[in-house]
Amino acid sequence: MKLHEKPKMPKGFTCTGINCGIKETGMDLSLFHSESCANAAAVFTRSHFPGAPVIVGREIIKKGFLRSIVVNSRVSNVGTGEAGVQNARRMATAVAREMNVPEDEVIMSSTGVIAKPLPIERIEAGIAGISAKLVDDPLLGARGIMTTDTYPKAISLSVEDATLTIIGKGSGMIEPNMATMLVYIFTDAAVRTPELDKMLREVVDTTFNMLSVDTDTSTSDTCVAMANGLAGTVDRKELRKALEFGCIAMTKMLAADGEGATKLLTAKISGAGNDKEARYIAKAMINSPLIKTMAYGADPNIGRILMVLGKCFDCEIHPERIEIAINGQVVYRDQQRVDFDEENVRKLLAGERVEIVVNLNNGAYDAIAYGCDLTEGYIEENAAYYSS
Amino acid sequence: MKLHEKPKMPKGFTCTGINCGIKETGMDLSLFHSESCANAAAVFTRSHFPGAPVIVGREIIKKGFLRSIVVNSRVSNVGTGEAGVQNARRMATAVAREMNVPEDEVIMSSTGVIAKPLPIERIEAGIAGISAKLVDDPLLGARGIMTTDTYPKAISLSVEDATLTIIGKGSGMIEPNMATMLVYIFTDAAVRTPELDKMLREVVDTTFNMLSVDTDTSTSDTCVAMANGLAGTVDRKELRKALEFGCIAMTKMLAADGEGATKLLTAKISGAGNDKEARYIAKAMINSPLIKTMAYGADPNIGRILMVLGKCFDCEIHPERIEIAINGQVVYRDQQRVDFDEENVRKLLAGERVEIVVNLNNGAYDAIAYGCDLTEGYIEENAAYYSS
Repeated sequence: MKLHEKPKMPKGFTCTGINCGIKETGMDLSLFHSESCANAAAVFTRSHFPGAPVIVGREIIKKGFLRSIVVNSRVSNVGTGEAGVQNARRMATAVAREMNVPEDEVIMSSTGVIAKPLPIERIEAGIAGISAKLVDDPLLGARGIMTTDTYPKAISLSVEDATLTIIGKGSGMIEPNMATMLVYIFTDAAVRTPELDKMLREVVDTTFNMLSVDTDTSTSDTCVAMANGLAGTVDRKELRKALEFGCIAMTKMLAADGEGATKLLTAKISGAGNDKEARYIAKAMINSPLIKTMAYGADPNIGRILMVLGKCFDCEIHPERIEIAINGQVVYRDQQRVDFDEENVRKLLAGERVEIVVNLNNGAYDAIAYGCDLTEGYIEENAAYYSS
Repeated sequence: MKLHEKPKMPKGFTCTGINCGIKETGMDLSLFHSESCANAAAVFTRSHFPGAPVIVGREIIKKGFLRSIVVNSRVSNVGTGEAGVQNARRMATAVAREMNVPEDEVIMSSTGVIAKPLPIERIEAGIAGISAKLVDDPLLGARGIMTTDTYPKAISLSVEDATLTIIGKGSGMIEPNMATMLVYIFTDAAVRTPELDKMLREVVDTTFNMLSVDTDTSTSDTCVAMANGLAGTVDRKELRKALEFGCIAMTKMLAADGEGATKLLTAKISGAGNDKEARYIAKAMINSPLIKTMAYGADPNIGRILMVLGKCFDCEIHPERIEIAINGQVVYRDQQRVDFDEENVRKLLAGERVEIVVNLNNGAYDAIAYGCDLTEGYIEENAAYYSS
């Protein structure tokens, strides 16, 4: 496994990003394409109000093959009823015609404002002729799906002769326009659909599902993986490792670029009695507004960490067993504050990451959650936003 | 039932607030006292890390009688081990000596920074001679327990010949120093302890337990009720009604004065299939950062309300049944946005309250949750705070 300095699309995959007129300026439409039919798997938001692309996407992915992924930003096609479902299908139809592929091998995402009709004519006009613009650079496709992200996000890894490329956008589980977490994973390694599906679900569970910018869950969250096999078979364990490494890296990028964020905030809970409690407490830690503002303020506030543990009412917490470290410095153990160099820890916290590690000393399970600090920038972006 | 314009202590109750030197300026110590033994009940935080006063208070309240409540602000006596428990007891001992009452009829609270030793000598010196300062004005006692509250909070109601007075502080479930929600309820109506306990638990469940400023739960939350019987028996239903009315009013005051808050945010969920889901969804609504910033921005963002309903994964939500109103204006029904005068709703939302009402149309249960908007003020107060 080797991380590429500059991301590229795997063999047989191309992509592009264009402006089709939904946004006044900047890219608003991306296409990702495989020259041969690719095995595919996907996971979607659990929201009770899924967007039309999620409703349609769940059907399409059942087949287990994909050729193309088309994504527009600015309008989410959520809360748009039957017309929205038809518009999502029209995106696939337009790509199928342009790329000369079966309609049911094209999946779509939309991200942006909700309960507004999708400007489908502009999207269709944008798709016509887009095939001529397909290139090898994942950052172009990453740019077309951005909303409040501050930079396009893509990484590539080598696994033997194969390449694994992950493209994502945030800025978190949700952002002002409900712009959603979207992640697309491409590889030229040969992987059968059931295996790809299993690998994807397992990795998403410990990476993107442990990411939270603001506790709010989008109606459109989507993660799709495509494997076209053009680079042949590679060692399964190595591929799994690369997928996990890449998804953790993308999760951290999405967290650190959360709305208004200045820092990556991670919480590792170790020594839990079971997996569920480890995950629950790790998430509670990165979701606490008082922990998030403490990260922003670069203050090693042990009281707030104890407070979060204290409010996990249904979890097994034995105060006398708790050990806490902040950015590598043990700060609490044996029911009391450890004597440590506060000024030094404040200097560490003033950097780009805040790492809280809690050992519950109850058992063998651990979990890591990924978040960011809470700043005036979040308030500004989200209070200033008008829904119409 | 009649609300007093100016709050007063019920018959036989007095209180005061003083500076005993924990804070440089401003009151930091309050005493509430009944001239005769009062029946008493209390509820405390569910935190796994309760403060020393909560640990001691749980023992004291078992007896079912109280004469005095002593409260200091600035230092919370949380995470202070066995020494903290001894210091909490010393507060009771000092009051017992000063007021000539049994030591086990004095309950105590502390609110402020955690994991710092309680300055017990200053508190003991402050308690000596405090009996001469006891008066009839609840606002004086309310002032001594304040932390980041912007004003002292007390209300009085008449129920026949009896008075019911409620004194509270926020600023929410928790605030920078974990300063805690503290509420003290006094009445001269005659109520036996088991009945007082039952009434208190029932009312707290739909009022203070439905309040959240920032989803974080203090290690010291305490609500104590005392009934000394000096005004004799009153109609039970009327007393219950007054208690509920008073606690709702105090809940709203605490929510609206949450840290950095400019507005009271309420969410009513009606038509739920059961009580648990109604409460869960109402709390999810007022706790969502995107709803809180929407309130701050005075924007009727239907998408964010649907998003919150969507993320209540384990609740029964039928999109086709959902009806939503914002400040009295129906904005969503039959799976679509209702045509309404947005400018008018924005004007309503620019006021001091934002009211979201969602009818799930599943059943007969409803619940109301109380919160506030999320503003730069919250970030400033909580990021600027240093724990040492």
